[in-house]
Amino acid sequence: MTYYSFAFGIGSKDSAGNWLEVFYPEPLLYPAADLLEKITQTLGHEGGNGFLELGRQQLETLQHAFPASSDSDSRIAALLQTLMQSTKPLLATFLASDSQPASVPEAYLKLHLLSHRLVKPHATNLNGIFALLPNVAWTNQGAIAVSELAGRQLQARLQGEFLEVMSVDKFPKMANYVVPSGVRIAHTARVRLGAYIGEGTTVMHEGFVNFNAGTDGKAMIEGRISAGVTIGEGSDLGGGCSTMGTLSGGGNELISVGRDCLIGANAGLGFPLGDRCIIEAGLYVTAGTKVSLLDHDNKPVAVVRARELSGRNDLLFRRNSNTGMVECKTNKSKIELNAELHAHN
Amino acid sequence: MTYYSFAFGIGSKDSAGNWLEVFYPEPLLYPAADLLEKITQTLGHEGGNGFLELGRQQLETLQHAFPASSDSDSRIAALLQTLMQSTKPLLATFLASDSQPASVPEAYLKLHLLSHRLVKPHATNLNGIFALLPNVAWTNQGAIAVSELAGRQLQARLQGEFLEVMSVDKFPKMANYVVPSGVRIAHTARVRLGAYIGEGTTVMHEGFVNFNAGTDGKAMIEGRISAGVTIGEGSDLGGGCSTMGTLSGGGNELISVGRDCLIGANAGLGFPLGDRCIIEAGLYVTAGTKVSLLDHDNKPVAVVRARELSGRNDLLFRRNSNTGMVECKTNKSKIELNAELHAHN
Amino acid sequence: MTYYSFAFGIGSKDSAGNWLEVFYPEPLLYPAADLLEKITQTLGHEGGNGFLELGRQQLETLQHAFPASSDSDSRIAALLQTLMQSTKPLLATFLASDSQPASVPEAYLKLHLLSHRLVKPHATNLNGIFALLPNVAWTNQGAIAVSELAGRQLQARLQGEFLEVMSVDKFPKMANYVVPSGVRIAHTARVRLGAYIGEGTTVMHEGFVNFNAGTDGKAMIEGRISAGVTIGEGSDLGGGCSTMGTLSGGGNELISVGRDCLIGANAGLGFPLGDRCIIEAGLYVTAGTKVSLLDHDNKPVAVVRARELSGRNDLLFRRNSNTGMVECKTNKSKIELNAELHAHN
Repeated sequence: MTYYSFAFGIGSKDSAGNWLEVFYPEPLLYPAADLLEKITQTLGHEGGNGFLELGRQQLETLQHAFPASSDSDSRIAALLQTLMQSTKPLLATFLASDSQPASVPEAYLKLHLLSHRLVKPHATNLNGIFALLPNVAWTNQGAIAVSELAGRQLQARLQGEFLEVMSVDKFPKMANYVVPSGVRIAHTARVRLGAYIGEGTTVMHEGFVNFNAGTDGKAMIEGRISAGVTIGEGSDLGGGCSTMGTLSGGGNELISVGRDCLIGANAGLGFPLGDRCIIEAGLYVTAGTKVSLLDHDNKPVAVVRARELSGRNDLLFRRNSNTGMVECKTNKSKIELNAELHAHN
Repeated sequence: MTYYSFAFGIGSKDSAGNWLEVFYPEPLLYPAADLLEKITQTLGHEGGNGFLELGRQQLETLQHAFPASSDSDSRIAALLQTLMQSTKPLLATFLASDSQPASVPEAYLKLHLLSHRLVKPHATNLNGIFALLPNVAWTNQGAIAVSELAGRQLQARLQGEFLEVMSVDKFPKMANYVVPSGVRIAHTARVRLGAYIGEGTTVMHEGFVNFNAGTDGKAMIEGRISAGVTIGEGSDLGGGCSTMGTLSGGGNELISVGRDCLIGANAGLGFPLGDRCIIEAGLYVTAGTKVSLLDHDNKPVAVVRARELSGRNDLLFRRNSNTGMVECKTNKSKIELNAELHAHN
Repeated sequence: MTYYSFAFGIGSKDSAGNWLEVFYPEPLLYPAADLLEKITQTLGHEGGNGFLELGRQQLETLQHAFPASSDSDSRIAALLQTLMQSTKPLLATFLASDSQPASVPEAYLKLHLLSHRLVKPHATNLNGIFALLPNVAWTNQGAIAVSELAGRQLQARLQGEFLEVMSVDKFPKMANYVVPSGVRIAHTARVRLGAYIGEGTTVMHEGFVNFNAGTDGKAMIEGRISAGVTIGEGSDLGGGCSTMGTLSGGGNELISVGRDCLIGANAGLGFPLGDRCIIEAGLYVTAGTKVSLLDHDNKPVAVVRARELSGRNDLLFRRNSNTGMVECKTNKSKIELNAELHAHN
């Protein structure tokens, strides 16, 4: 019995009983077969993708199956012991396979897999997630259905309480679910659940990371990582720089940034960048930008569309401040590269 | 008796009794004449613009005038029933006419009219509002006068409480007062009370909407809508793009964006844009930018200042990446437009 | 006995007893010699830089030394009276000299000196502060050690509480420690403790101020003030504009902006700017940008690197929208300036 993922969760519902969000403290990717067999049998789960809300009785049955004295399952046993205290709805979510999420608990489990660094961006099926996730008011009193918000706001005011509405969105902020090891996130409102923030990454105040996007390792992020965009280890996104996403406005091509790149402040990128590339501050290079290639004497040798340079390493992009022309030099004066680039024209 | 607006509100005061802010759960624009007559008579309001703080006795008189069994006034009756529970100061605010606001409660009522979508940007008189509104510390313990903040912070620390100061500003965030139907606002700190957010609008994390500004309908806002700027239905403001306001730095001309436009990421706009226009990512077109008009063979036919293109439809603005020249093509190759543009030169 | 600085503080520790942060309500710069002598003697502080955690007994000794009836020390006496109520750890922090901070309490005192406007940016030694400060989860339940966050999040969920994680960073937001007089900060998450915000400054939602950076007086900040950057009185940083810092990506030269400057929206600056200068919206001028100097007939007279214009007054920078060339005019048509600039070439 090989499952794709499994987790126990604590969720919130609106007053009509619809799930608003689910918190999974310890999501599992490819959980051990014997563990899953024991859980599915104990709960009577019949296989496939889905979730079960856990009542008191089911929790006790689970605790019986995973006693505190258990050696092999000590982690699950400890978690169950803790979950017994919950005043909020508990659930068990099963993903037998990585198919399109079909419920809020399933979608949230997949977003957790990304932010817990169990799967990389694009490595889990998130098709249809926008339609699936409800729009939620994220407040200092927890998740509230948008339709119930006005009433709650009035009640809070009457009682002299303060109901702070931080966000009205389908995706919550990641940091309220998990903060992976070795990161700084100066302003958590800018990182959605479902972001993959690599070990050693700092996301500064102006940085932003959408879901299904992120950094591979150590990185300095002061610019915006759009949905689907990935940033290689050692790269630096300058303040306010932009990476084109594919959800709105951008094209269809997936943008990425290789290792050890520097995208300057207020610059922008509309094509996949290789390793050790630099885009100077303030320059937006879209896929269709015509770029003049320079040899190492700074003589133009060809003009290509930026998309033709996709994935090429050691490039420096700048706008010539005398001619206004967008130019590309090899970052390390590698003549081989220019030679090859000639051939592209 | 035709009034411009009326509302019951719940407010906050500083320790000297000055109003800091007012929350109006159900503001009315052009309320029914007989309703207002009944309210003014019950409260002894003598007409004109102003507000009355409501004591217990006045509330009881109001409840008597609007009994729970009332059919015609059931909504007011229900609201009064609810307001009776308030532990905070209640008030009734009357705007007989749309003249310049003269008090904090009047100013807040006008900001509510905008954010409740009862009036469009520029459609209500907000003259002098900056001078009128007090600077307030917006905290997780509610609105605090700036002069009282340091003492409250010290007290909170001593008691091991956490006093979070979210904003020190004259305008609060809209979402703590109203979230209009059919919107997403990923980060509510970026939308001021007094913004008009059209049905179907998403304001992403990098989006921003000032007061007396907003969107007409469905729109994707990842850029900044400055005070006074309006965005037409179907338009998309890319990440970090800028619209010039008239408060600071910008000129005197009111900026707007028509329908179905796309302002690229990190681009900018300093003149009123027509419908179906595109500004490419990273290009800032101010009113004074000299723009080379191209015919549909991409031949330059004239050079004009961008402000001469104000309100023109179907334009595409880009900076030629070979020549550095800012160019404008008709977005749909409409030769008529170019012909007419010739005449401008 | 001349000390550099002294303050009583209220701090937070993690469960292992490490200091996470310290709040100093009334930090002193160059405190009166007799006051410090009395405090050091009372507490048995042996001189030098350091801090003492204050137990009940030490507080009582201090109160005895500074009785409520004291005239000369009435401020200290009142503060001590207040601090006695604290449920959180209290400490006294001594900086005999302005040397590199050696502990979390010392580092926090220095950041307070900046944000209380007691010292200007670069005027206090902050060497090594990054290594010294712990990475902290800043939450609505106060400062939490990152290593303890996951457990606290789970506990909060179980109890139906909401643990909001606002930031995971070495620096907290300034406004939770001090809001200096005469400022507005529309979104406090964007100003770090250690920022120096001059009287009369407004930091709008898109503004940002790092530590050891800030504004000298009245200013409108809608752009980003990087670590180490200072802005002169009367200057306006347009929405989303960038100033290059020296921590990451930027060069080694310290950037500053003089008085009465305007950096346009989405523009950028990579060299020290003089007074009354303008950079047009959307133009990023780095230190290495080649700039064509124009005389007052708009004729080019020389080409220089922007860094050669460091500190020069009355300059206007723009990109010619016909030629793509970055140009510099004297903002006030001062022919003397151009004459001198000639000499630079």
